[in-house]
Amino acid sequence: MGGHSKTAKANLDAMYRIFTVPEAPDSTLSQVDQYISGNLTGFLQDHIVALEREMGEMEKDFSNPQVPEKPIFVSEQVQFLLDKLVAQSVHTASPSFIGHMTSALPYFMLPLSKIMIALNQNLVKTETSKAFTPLERQVLGMLHHLIYRFEDAWYRQWMHDPHQALGTMCSGGTVANLTALWVARNQAFPAEGGFRGVHQEGLFRALRFYGYEGAAILVSERGHYSLRKAADILGLGRDFLIPVATDADNRIDPDALRDRCLELQQQKIRVLSIVGIAGTTETGHVDPLETLADIAREFGAHFHVDAAWGGPTLFSRTHQHRLKGIDQADSVTIDAHKQLYTPQGAGMVLFRNPSVVSSIELHAQYVIRKGSKDLGSTTLEGSRPGMAMLIHSGLRIIGREGYEILIDQGIEKAETFAEMIRRHADFELITAPELNILTYRYCPARVREALTHASVEDAERINASLNRITRFIQKTQRERGKSFVSRTQLEPAHYNHYPCVVFRVVLANPLTTREILSDILAEQAAIGSEDSIAGEKRALEASVAGVLETLSA
Amino acid sequence: MGGHSKTAKANLDAMYRIFTVPEAPDSTLSQVDQYISGNLTGFLQDHIVALEREMGEMEKDFSNPQVPEKPIFVSEQVQFLLDKLVAQSVHTASPSFIGHMTSALPYFMLPLSKIMIALNQNLVKTETSKAFTPLERQVLGMLHHLIYRFEDAWYRQWMHDPHQALGTMCSGGTVANLTALWVARNQAFPAEGGFRGVHQEGLFRALRFYGYEGAAILVSERGHYSLRKAADILGLGRDFLIPVATDADNRIDPDALRDRCLELQQQKIRVLSIVGIAGTTETGHVDPLETLADIAREFGAHFHVDAAWGGPTLFSRTHQHRLKGIDQADSVTIDAHKQLYTPQGAGMVLFRNPSVVSSIELHAQYVIRKGSKDLGSTTLEGSRPGMAMLIHSGLRIIGREGYEILIDQGIEKAETFAEMIRRHADFELITAPELNILTYRYCPARVREALTHASVEDAERINASLNRITRFIQKTQRERGKSFVSRTQLEPAHYNHYPCVVFRVVLANPLTTREILSDILAEQAAIGSEDSIAGEKRALEASVAGVLETLSA
Repeated sequence: MGGHSKTAKANLDAMYRIFTVPEAPDSTLSQVDQYISGNLTGFLQDHIVALEREMGEMEKDFSNPQVPEKPIFVSEQVQFLLDKLVAQSVHTASPSFIGHMTSALPYFMLPLSKIMIALNQNLVKTETSKAFTPLERQVLGMLHHLIYRFEDAWYRQWMHDPHQALGTMCSGGTVANLTALWVARNQAFPAEGGFRGVHQEGLFRALRFYGYEGAAILVSERGHYSLRKAADILGLGRDFLIPVATDADNRIDPDALRDRCLELQQQKIRVLSIVGIAGTTETGHVDPLETLADIAREFGAHFHVDAAWGGPTLFSRTHQHRLKGIDQADSVTIDAHKQLYTPQGAGMVLFRNPSVVSSIELHAQYVIRKGSKDLGSTTLEGSRPGMAMLIHSGLRIIGREGYEILIDQGIEKAETFAEMIRRHADFELITAPELNILTYRYCPARVREALTHASVEDAERINASLNRITRFIQKTQRERGKSFVSRTQLEPAHYNHYPCVVFRVVLANPLTTREILSDILAEQAAIGSEDSIAGEKRALEASVAGVLETLSA
Repeated sequence: MGGHSKTAKANLDAMYRIFTVPEAPDSTLSQVDQYISGNLTGFLQDHIVALEREMGEMEKDFSNPQVPEKPIFVSEQVQFLLDKLVAQSVHTASPSFIGHMTSALPYFMLPLSKIMIALNQNLVKTETSKAFTPLERQVLGMLHHLIYRFEDAWYRQWMHDPHQALGTMCSGGTVANLTALWVARNQAFPAEGGFRGVHQEGLFRALRFYGYEGAAILVSERGHYSLRKAADILGLGRDFLIPVATDADNRIDPDALRDRCLELQQQKIRVLSIVGIAGTTETGHVDPLETLADIAREFGAHFHVDAAWGGPTLFSRTHQHRLKGIDQADSVTIDAHKQLYTPQGAGMVLFRNPSVVSSIELHAQYVIRKGSKDLGSTTLEGSRPGMAMLIHSGLRIIGREGYEILIDQGIEKAETFAEMIRRHADFELITAPELNILTYRYCPARVREALTHASVEDAERINASLNRITRFIQKTQRERGKSFVSRTQLEPAHYNHYPCVVFRVVLANPLTTREILSDILAEQAAIGSEDSIAGEKRALEASVAGVLETLSA
């Protein structure tokens, strides 16, 4: 018994210790901490292993479903993480990893993140966040101003008003889009007469009351998949996320959009929202936002713009015109963890009219009481960290001019890379960059020549072969770990909308140089010449030769 | 021109620098970073100002909606944050702040968070997270095992299967509850015959096809407000989140629940889900989960348990019995940023049957492709940080025994504090702790005596007065910044369900001692004796005297 209680006391002390005694300066964890502070690039280069392990192999290190009975030492866990997790993580900060929307972070974000985590505020209510509440409202105000440019007096009046919200913060673009469409849905079916609103009575009664057979969201076929998810969650159904045809430049076709809206009207389906994209995920194109705003007005629809990626283009005097019309949007999604360069977990939606959030507002007794300034009454999420502090710091430390430089050089670099691809014998540019994103594929000039003359059947065989080669190059390059471009599938009009596998490049890391881009292309060409893909290439050549011979015959 | 391009070059260099040159060791930010690593308690004590500023005053520091044109120095921003933000943040780690579910963090969480942020992985897909994917699946497996305790072989088979998900991670309990109810809704109205499922065709057609007039979620009136929000978002309507009466111990009344279910059935409203609570937000009580499981089965409803707070009680051999029946739940919400002691932003929902996520599964071409192991195909959110790394570290470094100690001492301390309140002349315990949460209010014995005999009218007057005094004490104590308890409103049965304002205490910080608790009570008693509330107390005494005189007459 004595022994038992002695152990219990020792265990209790051990538990207190982890809350009171910091890691010793010479502990593994402190050393890692210092290494990261002093030389992040070195830390990542030293610890991330380039060569990719098989997923099945990695899973073996993470297979025990039992929480260990006894505590283990911090140093043991840190060593495990370094060996098994950090070593096999993705070097997102590497300037030769140009396939992700996740890129390098400015150095100051790391220690600032530690302050944020040390403070452990919860922004759901002022009681657990105090000054973080007005800080977050200011950040929303700054981004609102970037988009809508209202007078300063307007912001003085509304920015800190407890009954308004210039926007709401959330973990990322998916929740931001969902929040915007939630507002759109609730505003489309408000309380009227005996009906107490869709938020109270639900969608079934709302549609019955208003005499509709359904409610739809329209977006180009390049729309982000989160919109389809939102249509599902909101009870509209994925069928009612209507994809609209795009032109050759991956921008929504306004005539096709208007036709679909008219069709829906005839079917008694409410046009709930029209979504414009400012920087599509796959190709970085921007929809004609002004035209979309007009069509949305025509059909009484909520006009939402998904600018999760492209929003910060507004910082650039040179390129902001590409987003012309965004200030007519009822709501706009922006992800700070993309082109505002904060860590993951910082999305937001801004509202032109800050009183629209009343349609989703909710209060409780123990939190977010009516009349309070608690942010939680208008967010989809509840407890949330103080990411606004990192956005605020980025906006002030980088400044408008700094973000402008980051945007401008990204777009310039994309244009440079597009030119390299156009001049390269092996590759074909599929989508030229409008912002800092482009796509291309393996397709030598001779094959392109054949494709312009091939029968539908031959073209399909050739494209299928090109798909296999492009996929092989992308996968092999990724596995070797020196550089990384992603891939997706597009249906180019000039190939009769055949689904083509393409390389996708996102140029957001300011450290990516022209030389790096040239090396990436060279590595891809080299992989394309390797033995293991030679069979596929011979088959391709046979098809191509067949077409060209028929042609010359 | 030359001058202009020189400036441009300098600006460009400045932008490169923030991505390549770490803060100097003697910079303000590095110093803060080191201070936090070496002495978090000291840093928080030195920088957080106890006395609360008026919200209106704080807002002045966060009022400019313009993003500054020119970059500012990191040191300037850090000084601003220290003076205006950190100084006016909430000392959530203080052992005398016992009003929040946000508490102290183990020391190792800070440097580990920095590693996580430095790696900047995005868990939406393996391409941007590699080993973080199996790590997250293991963490979900460990929590699944904590709840369901299936055989190891079962976990070996399913934990890493790409077509299954033992659970999904998200930013917090609200999204976790929403995800669970989204699954419940989609499973209740699946594809059948000509109907392609609610996820495709929407709720309107689903209800029409299945012949219902609505679909409802039932939970006790102590249910978290996120459930009402979920009912709104999912298109069911807030009216269809049906609050069920509770017994004197704040647990759902099973008979009342069954009655409501029968009523709904008669009204052709589908009983979609019954939600049990394992640790209510306000009082910490646990519903009779076994009974709820039976009723859910009876009505073919999805049985969800909101164990955002109470889930980790399962680590305690002494107290796990309080959650008996949780292993019969179809889904369970747990927040890691609560009693697993990770930073904000780590919630999850676990599924008994890992194939149910197919009802919300979604794929896209450029990400989360079919057959991939990408976590994003079954999460509500898209891009997400690698919080699983912090949960994994907590589970291994603290271990089952460590969490057991944390749980046990929290519950013991709550019982001790309850006893102190019972013995104190000024206070009345309103809800005794089942877990580590309790509520009480200002109400001296003499007033209690009067209340037992007062007319409804007198009782209302007296309770209203007690509410004002309790609210005054809570607010004043918070503003003085030495200690903090929160407040809520309850309708105790023994006061005829009159809405009583109560203090709410959450004992999750292991550093909170008996002495601190005693001091908090003493401070409250002292505030209750201050001049500024004397008028209210005289009015109270007059009412009480009136009742007691009538009684003795």
